[in-house]
Amino acid sequence: MKIINSTQNKKLKQLCKLHTKKERDHTGLFLVEGMHMIEEAKCAHCLKEVFLLEGMEPLFEDRATVCSAPVIQKLSNQNSQAKIIGLCEKPKQDPKQEKAILILDDIQDPGNAGTLIRTAFAFGMDKIYCSEHTVDFYNPKVLQASQGAIFHIPIQRGALEEVISSHQKEGMKILGTSLHQRSISLGDVQIQAPYGIVLGNEGQGVHPELLDLCDTLIKIEMEQFESLNVAIAGGILMYTLRSRFQDA
Amino acid sequence: MKIINSTQNKKLKQLCKLHTKKERDHTGLFLVEGMHMIEEAKCAHCLKEVFLLEGMEPLFEDRATVCSAPVIQKLSNQNSQAKIIGLCEKPKQDPKQEKAILILDDIQDPGNAGTLIRTAFAFGMDKIYCSEHTVDFYNPKVLQASQGAIFHIPIQRGALEEVISSHQKEGMKILGTSLHQRSISLGDVQIQAPYGIVLGNEGQGVHPELLDLCDTLIKIEMEQFESLNVAIAGGILMYTLRSRFQDA
Repeated sequence: MKIINSTQNKKLKQLCKLHTKKERDHTGLFLVEGMHMIEEAKCAHCLKEVFLLEGMEPLFEDRATVCSAPVIQKLSNQNSQAKIIGLCEKPKQDPKQEKAILILDDIQDPGNAGTLIRTAFAFGMDKIYCSEHTVDFYNPKVLQASQGAIFHIPIQRGALEEVISSHQKEGMKILGTSLHQRSISLGDVQIQAPYGIVLGNEGQGVHPELLDLCDTLIKIEMEQFESLNVAIAGGILMYTLRSRFQDA
Repeated sequence: MKIINSTQNKKLKQLCKLHTKKERDHTGLFLVEGMHMIEEAKCAHCLKEVFLLEGMEPLFEDRATVCSAPVIQKLSNQNSQAKIIGLCEKPKQDPKQEKAILILDDIQDPGNAGTLIRTAFAFGMDKIYCSEHTVDFYNPKVLQASQGAIFHIPIQRGALEEVISSHQKEGMKILGTSLHQRSISLGDVQIQAPYGIVLGNEGQGVHPELLDLCDTLIKIEMEQFESLNVAIAGGILMYTLRSRFQDA
């Protein structure tokens, strides 16, 4: 089995560059931590190599490298003591018919982005589109919050105006979320697939230019005039619209 | 106006002790950051003192102290550069009739706890009960995620067995969340107020001893057999049960 003991190792230095978005974009590679994420990567045929803390039972022998504790620590992005780190390639998902999609407009918080990916997968959304300024989905905090769902749901980054209009041309209804008075309450929304849900930035909400393109504006009924965390709002919308569609 | 320029200042050192749960428990005081939280604290009559970065426009003059940048930084718990910090006392909420309550069993993640407090307030829950091992609600990350809702919803910490049984004696139905096969799907739950929702630890779920006490076990329908983030699950449950109750 291969071994890396020195934090000056050339390959280690190359791998540590993957802590930046630039290198992840350039190579199409990223790092994951912990057995759960590595198992998910393997199932999705995305796992290229594994880096094991010395002393751990030998796993994934065909592609494993044993590393000293300082080497693993350099590879790790988390505070907790990592024991196993995987080198993955970004998943290539087959295009499938899009009955329900999630559209993320400049989501900034990695925890929110990861939780939305996890929730979208759980509720059977077919694809996630995100704006250029949305946080990188291969950022370690996003990956952690996604709990491996990143390997199972197709994602695409790009200009959302085009995403919305091209889907509308194919008959999809686009629902924008806005606390505006003219928005329809979620309980009153009548919708059939295909549909898309647009969620906005934590501070600013959905860009007005995008809201103008939406077929319907919706809001979640609350007792207090407050806003909800965007991942909570997304969870409620995906669950409610999904179950309503199934009833139809 | 009072001034603190030295990081060796005695009062500053006393205030910095509030970064620990022990001192917050002992004194009933805690610190908040940013104008939004301070405004919320003031509205709830919990704001005792304000610490302003020098050069800021004078605010809350009757209770403000102007501080040098290093002093504010010592008081702050966040990475971002704080400009205004408030000293608050824990809110005392008047008991009110409890029609819907949230019961948190060992929630550990501060972001999840804060988001659940924010969401419970938005959906008009009457009170939050939490187990002794739930993360401290006056932890800065919890406060930040709660977005000030901590000042508006009564919370109580203690043994959940007693909370559940005393509420059941008063006619409340307690709903436990569990992915167990015998759990009822949320879409099929028939419930009228008063009710309580029990949410469990991120890794372990609700303790089996507590699930045994619950009147009904429920689960959220998903396409994939996955678990949801606990704050997402809580948001969906609070929204769905609330709107169903209103229809009744």
